[in-house]
Amino acid sequence: MGTSAAGTTAATGGRRKPGRPHGELLNRPKIGAVTLQFVGENGYDALTMSALAKALGVSPSALYNHVESKKDLLELVQDLVMERVDCSEFEVNPLEQALRTWAVSYRNVFAEHTPLVSVIALMPVAGSPRTLQMYEQVAAGFTRAGWDDHRIVPAIVALESFIFGSALDAVAPKDIFDVGPTPQEVPAFSAAVDAQRATGNDPAQDSFTYGLEALLKGLLSGQQQV
Amino acid sequence: MGTSAAGTTAATGGRRKPGRPHGELLNRPKIGAVTLQFVGENGYDALTMSALAKALGVSPSALYNHVESKKDLLELVQDLVMERVDCSEFEVNPLEQALRTWAVSYRNVFAEHTPLVSVIALMPVAGSPRTLQMYEQVAAGFTRAGWDDHRIVPAIVALESFIFGSALDAVAPKDIFDVGPTPQEVPAFSAAVDAQRATGNDPAQDSFTYGLEALLKGLLSGQQQV
Repeated sequence: MGTSAAGTTAATGGRRKPGRPHGELLNRPKIGAVTLQFVGENGYDALTMSALAKALGVSPSALYNHVESKKDLLELVQDLVMERVDCSEFEVNPLEQALRTWAVSYRNVFAEHTPLVSVIALMPVAGSPRTLQMYEQVAAGFTRAGWDDHRIVPAIVALESFIFGSALDAVAPKDIFDVGPTPQEVPAFSAAVDAQRATGNDPAQDSFTYGLEALLKGLLSGQQQV
Repeated sequence: MGTSAAGTTAATGGRRKPGRPHGELLNRPKIGAVTLQFVGENGYDALTMSALAKALGVSPSALYNHVESKKDLLELVQDLVMERVDCSEFEVNPLEQALRTWAVSYRNVFAEHTPLVSVIALMPVAGSPRTLQMYEQVAAGFTRAGWDDHRIVPAIVALESFIFGSALDAVAPKDIFDVGPTPQEVPAFSAAVDAQRATGNDPAQDSFTYGLEALLKGLLSGQQQV
């Protein structure tokens, strides 16, 4: 460990001060919390193992003793972020309302953490206790509403797919649908873009709300028939 | 340009041969086509400007004369990939059927190019002629079906959000929903996962089909009411 000599000085200062002894202090929960603070301040592009080690006041090799890779780090953060998703209504409110609250909150949380979208979409749930707990609350909501067990996972995954895509769309540039210098070549699309703009609604918010209501309606009305 | 001296030798050989004159041969369409071939053979992780320059048989600086960055390169590829999305039915079939064919094809194409999902989700359409053409065909389908103009963009974006999220889910590991060593702590979710598995259906395919039908149903039945 590159800083082990410096690490023998007394631990008296702030978390990020280099030179404190880190052997007994560094652990995965602490690394996760500092990473979350780091990306909040600096963004995900700035997140490297060495930059994070510096923020933690430890050597990169000390960090690698606890976290295998940047991917491992992102999984750690994902688990923490998941705690912010609102699952509180499943036990107390009708399924449709609880799903709406959950979906809105889930999309908003991940719109602030879009680099985590591909992490959570690909990560086995067993590695993330909070994610697993979330799925339990959502699944229990479906079960209480009388859903057939075999339809619950497809319904949750369908909602999540929509939520993840919507989180990416939430950070799209505002000019994403500017059709460029030749609107006459795409007349139907130009008219549609202009008409949406004329509503004054934020297009990402408009699309998310409209899509979520449609998906909830389709899922909840279709359950009996399949 | 680092290879300009070598570039004065005669152009006689294959595309990837170093030393051919590239001044008149290198252009963005060619770079896009070679990039697409490159990622098909080596994956997106292997795609760097220098690796691609090598595949093209040119110096990195020659490549930078035509493409600004890896992001620019991905936008070039995205435009090419978009051509594979099936928009053929909008002119000839009912909207619901055309949307289904489009969505299935769109999801399948991007499931093979998941690193492009965040590119297309964030890229202004004016920069991608094929994407713009696709939107025109889809929007014209909605218009012909009698939709209010201001609802067309939200409907397309809602479908795309679901499609992008589903493309990511299509490449998730098969064990993504393994609940780990303590299924009794997540009984409702465990039962749901087991019941879906018992159907024998691929979970990603099952979720996409189920969600797409729900979303189409919700969108197409709801249009009159909003």
